[in-house]
Amino acid sequence: MIGLVAADMNGVNAVILDRMQSKVALIPELAGHLIAGGGKRMRPMLTLACASLLGYPGTRHHKLAAAVEFIHTATLLHDDVVDGSGMRRGKRTANLIWGNPASVLVGDFLFSRAFELMVEDGSLKVLRILSHASAVIAEGEVEQLTAQRRVETDEEQYLTIISSKTAALFAAACRVAPVVSEADEDSEHALESYGKNLGIAFQLTDDVIDYASDAATMGKGVGDDFRDGKMTLPVILAYARGSDSDRAFWRAAMSGERATDADLAQAIDLLRSSDALQDTIERARQYGRRAIDSLGKFPASKAKSALVEAAEFAVARAY
Amino acid sequence: MIGLVAADMNGVNAVILDRMQSKVALIPELAGHLIAGGGKRMRPMLTLACASLLGYPGTRHHKLAAAVEFIHTATLLHDDVVDGSGMRRGKRTANLIWGNPASVLVGDFLFSRAFELMVEDGSLKVLRILSHASAVIAEGEVEQLTAQRRVETDEEQYLTIISSKTAALFAAACRVAPVVSEADEDSEHALESYGKNLGIAFQLTDDVIDYASDAATMGKGVGDDFRDGKMTLPVILAYARGSDSDRAFWRAAMSGERATDADLAQAIDLLRSSDALQDTIERARQYGRRAIDSLGKFPASKAKSALVEAAEFAVARAY
Repeated sequence: MIGLVAADMNGVNAVILDRMQSKVALIPELAGHLIAGGGKRMRPMLTLACASLLGYPGTRHHKLAAAVEFIHTATLLHDDVVDGSGMRRGKRTANLIWGNPASVLVGDFLFSRAFELMVEDGSLKVLRILSHASAVIAEGEVEQLTAQRRVETDEEQYLTIISSKTAALFAAACRVAPVVSEADEDSEHALESYGKNLGIAFQLTDDVIDYASDAATMGKGVGDDFRDGKMTLPVILAYARGSDSDRAFWRAAMSGERATDADLAQAIDLLRSSDALQDTIERARQYGRRAIDSLGKFPASKAKSALVEAAEFAVARAY
Repeated sequence: MIGLVAADMNGVNAVILDRMQSKVALIPELAGHLIAGGGKRMRPMLTLACASLLGYPGTRHHKLAAAVEFIHTATLLHDDVVDGSGMRRGKRTANLIWGNPASVLVGDFLFSRAFELMVEDGSLKVLRILSHASAVIAEGEVEQLTAQRRVETDEEQYLTIISSKTAALFAAACRVAPVVSEADEDSEHALESYGKNLGIAFQLTDDVIDYASDAATMGKGVGDDFRDGKMTLPVILAYARGSDSDRAFWRAAMSGERATDADLAQAIDLLRSSDALQDTIERARQYGRRAIDSLGKFPASKAKSALVEAAEFAVARAY
């Protein structure tokens, strides 16, 4: 996908760098730490790739893709405050370096800037899509907070949470492209569905990686979800399938009573022996396939291949 | 002003109560604590009073006034996290009851909801005004954070900060009315100027109250600014006018080394003996007058009298 959208991505990056500026020096300093710091720019890339799929010839989507990335960056800044995270993308988090107050406020700034960019573009439909997605993301985050350390959270509830907190922005990022391209409603629906399913596949894979990778390769602290008592799908499956003593372990672990490295190792053993990691990957693969199947109506093209590869890669990261 | 806008305010309150709902129960619970909890609704009231001044006959401004209040509420939630505040409007703060993570995320939700309301209204001009105001507010908050505990902050810098963090939303709340009323540019300019100057007067008065009132009557912890090391105008003036030993005291106090009740009492003594409180009120009164003078072009009416009274009351609160 990177090759396909490289030229457009330069345009998006120019907007991002230009519009994260402020006369208040701490804003570009803090925002730049995260924005320049090795993010994959996956969501704006999806906007660009979907526009390419539809043969959109203009550049309006550069500002909108930048707006999507700003919304994403704002949620990352706030997430790290909410989770008290110390590492992201292999670097110390902004809240660790500049403190929670600065992270909260710079997140607010980027969020406002995102809306300013959309207003400049002038499409009320795009504004509706992205303001709604933003509200849904916040709802999903609050719901996840409510579910945290609650071992009774079930798969259904968890899918609702990640559909909101992760998939909504993927879906909106993709849907923006048919809107600016003035494509038909079917295309809009298809690409929204692609983004939504890709987002779920992506999040489920992330959940597996949190128990399976090492910090050096992924740039994320392994076991973060475990220590935060986050009921992600691997844990939900292992808890549902566990013996009485396994369940007692998960209750203690999710409540925060068992959070040492040895406890994490035991958790990973239980996740493996119950096939919870393998089945989560399998679920993720199915969502990835649904994403790919959403593209059925579009004829073969470089852009389509790139979108298919993106859905395959979202899951393949877990290997 | 309350009598003038009572009927419209019922409409605004209905929108607020309806649109702070969510299937995620914690959201209306937390938002309701602040929204139902004795706020003055000053900013939405300004939108309504300005619309009344212009003879606007419709109800479009109800949604927009609600959006303004949501933006304000979101910033309050985030402010309390940033400042680690425990009391607001005579009640325990949301972050104290539900924790910082919930306050950050519900703030994000209300902020997104505000934009959804504006999108429903459909005016790109209103969206431009309020998205820009939101970015300016965040800039002002970050700048204030940078100035915190920096005793060198001067009056000029401080006016820039409060023009952004406080006055920008007052100005936008007022400017929305001529936009929906389709009034001429002069009216827009005049009401924006009214709101901006009123906002500055309001903030300077708040700064005085933080050193002069008691918690029981104002519902705000006295000395909060002092303990947070906030360089507000009273302190800036007292520091500028102080002897070497006074300045040494302010340096220690603002850096957080002197924050007991006895230190606060000494601070209030210095603020009084240097006329810093009195002169801050005098500055506030001048901004209040500038607000009133901005209304010069409008003929006498109940609405105009209400706006004049609001500007007088903003300052009179300090007595």
